[in-house]
Amino acid sequence: VGGHPVSAVPDTVRQLRAGMHRAGLDAVVATTPDNVTYVAGFTVPSHLSNRFRRTLCLLPLDGEPALVVVTVEETLARDSTRWVREIHAYNEFTDDPFAVLAQLVRERRLEDARIGIEMDHVAADDYDRLRRHLPAARFSHAGPAFLEARMHKTPAEVQAIRTLAGLAARAHGEAYRRLRPGMTERDLARLLIDACPGVDYCRPIVGAGERSAFANAAPTDRPIAPGDVIRVDLIAGQNGFHSDIARTAVLGRPTAEQTRIWGALTDAYRRVQDRLAPGARTRDLHMTYLATLSAAGLEASLKFLGHGLGLTIHEEPYVNEYTDRALEPGMVLCLEPVYLVPGRMGFHIEDEFLITDSGFTVLSDGTPNDRLIEIGREA
Amino acid sequence: VGGHPVSAVPDTVRQLRAGMHRAGLDAVVATTPDNVTYVAGFTVPSHLSNRFRRTLCLLPLDGEPALVVVTVEETLARDSTRWVREIHAYNEFTDDPFAVLAQLVRERRLEDARIGIEMDHVAADDYDRLRRHLPAARFSHAGPAFLEARMHKTPAEVQAIRTLAGLAARAHGEAYRRLRPGMTERDLARLLIDACPGVDYCRPIVGAGERSAFANAAPTDRPIAPGDVIRVDLIAGQNGFHSDIARTAVLGRPTAEQTRIWGALTDAYRRVQDRLAPGARTRDLHMTYLATLSAAGLEASLKFLGHGLGLTIHEEPYVNEYTDRALEPGMVLCLEPVYLVPGRMGFHIEDEFLITDSGFTVLSDGTPNDRLIEIGREA
Repeated sequence: VGGHPVSAVPDTVRQLRAGMHRAGLDAVVATTPDNVTYVAGFTVPSHLSNRFRRTLCLLPLDGEPALVVVTVEETLARDSTRWVREIHAYNEFTDDPFAVLAQLVRERRLEDARIGIEMDHVAADDYDRLRRHLPAARFSHAGPAFLEARMHKTPAEVQAIRTLAGLAARAHGEAYRRLRPGMTERDLARLLIDACPGVDYCRPIVGAGERSAFANAAPTDRPIAPGDVIRVDLIAGQNGFHSDIARTAVLGRPTAEQTRIWGALTDAYRRVQDRLAPGARTRDLHMTYLATLSAAGLEASLKFLGHGLGLTIHEEPYVNEYTDRALEPGMVLCLEPVYLVPGRMGFHIEDEFLITDSGFTVLSDGTPNDRLIEIGREA
Repeated sequence: VGGHPVSAVPDTVRQLRAGMHRAGLDAVVATTPDNVTYVAGFTVPSHLSNRFRRTLCLLPLDGEPALVVVTVEETLARDSTRWVREIHAYNEFTDDPFAVLAQLVRERRLEDARIGIEMDHVAADDYDRLRRHLPAARFSHAGPAFLEARMHKTPAEVQAIRTLAGLAARAHGEAYRRLRPGMTERDLARLLIDACPGVDYCRPIVGAGERSAFANAAPTDRPIAPGDVIRVDLIAGQNGFHSDIARTAVLGRPTAEQTRIWGALTDAYRRVQDRLAPGARTRDLHMTYLATLSAAGLEASLKFLGHGLGLTIHEEPYVNEYTDRALEPGMVLCLEPVYLVPGRMGFHIEDEFLITDSGFTVLSDGTPNDRLIEIGREA
């Protein structure tokens, strides 16, 4: 099985190892689907779909990585692997995957080393077992090293996000062109899914009228009626990467109030983009956003304007008032001005931005957003 | 916001409380999407999509439940709630949701009580913080109480699974009717998704030819060619519930070897169904399966023949050689004979069965499976 050439150490792992070195970690153990994918280069399917099965990836600072997977997916893992050559399968009913991991740690003579684990993810009873298997190991939190490395996207990662985000942005446009009065939120969700062929998953958040004010609500059978604000947040995934793009439309002609709110949101969006460049600080960007909205008499509905995106939909760096981080080339940000009027309507725009040496480029398609999307005005 | 009538204690919670009483638990704290949904009756969306956000549900043996959610989704949670009236929102950047939880525990005078938490899910650092917030509480594992309650499906749960499984089973048939030579695995996946309108998610596992031997593999651009075995495992979800239905087809006419393998698998499937009734023991069912396969010279490819299904795709009871559990009316099982020939082909059939007072009923549609599905023989 297999036949893929074993390739060199991936750029992602080089970045992670640099962070491990700075943090004084001799090894890390990834337990989340995103961090295992970051190290191994592929996702074990039931790591996403079955919370009772553990997938573990050991990465020493020096030396061979190893993957611990459930027997069911051993052949798939062997076929998928690029540079992780050592794969160990366990029986999910009789074996302790952390005992398998501990043996791998001992084989690498790391049983008394400093080992980073995902303290914000590893289950309390798994951690307890791991400590009993490796009583001399010094465990600390590997999360910051992973998040720091993942903030700096490699060219391959940028390309993966760009391809997906471009597809998802076009899907928005195509779905609105096919939307007709009388269709429901679910019908619109279906148009969006149809417009995203070939992706691993596509999850449209669709709210019309008063339901557009609910963050993250799944589409329902509510019909879309003239005058409705339609808020769509389209999350798509491919090979572990995500895109997250939001648009707002009106069925018919927007009211003066809707136009005023949209004008304020997009004005704030533009002012933030005017400052979006290496060295800009996330907190300053957020304050620019808040000040612009405030001048228009609006208050931001979310506690963040933006977030990093990659192997998780949200990751570092956040753009909010609590995070003071200088932007660097290679970071990918979602910026998403949101204004929700509970019980009435909600407005949302969101695109993916790559920070470049000189400023930024939009990884989604840069649909003009100076006006609310107007649907079926002739209808 | 809201307007839903506050209803009586749900059947699911009555069952869980009976188990809590037997286990001597004064309260449980749900942290997984499935167990929060089991108690609260709805799923907080980012509980599924954002692993950094915590959603917690406190259920005392006596007294009011409470839900702790991120501020973003507070209004949606208030609109979705049926019987959980107390909802507390936290700022994901500044607040510790476990501190909010600890306060709710103290308000109920449970600070020195026996509290069940999900030890196989709560993160090591969250558990550490929780113990510091509630130093006198006696924590133990709530997982068994949840799994035991969830094994006994309520009529509403059975109906939810029946509706979804029926839809997904019909989708298989519809997709194979539309499959044409030259289409790829991804094309077939798209036909399956198209045939499942209105579901929350639909994830087809599609493998053709040698790829049909990979468990859980995502569809690729591999064209489906004459003579290929096509293995499809269709996972769908709606309102927190799942269906999990597999079929195997051949493009063209099956070979004698394929027909022989399929005959042995379906023979084993029938013999297990002949014994499927209250009182039957899961281990005995598995041994019947193994013995029938063995008589045909085949060895089972998976370590289980079946599993419970509901708010997770896999749950208790498992049908395997390690679990000796008597079946009871109200249990829902997926039974899935699987035979994989690495590098060549894979065979799989899977349906959902409800154990009834007198035996069982098939919740998926009971597509005849005495022959491999033959596609496009005239082509």
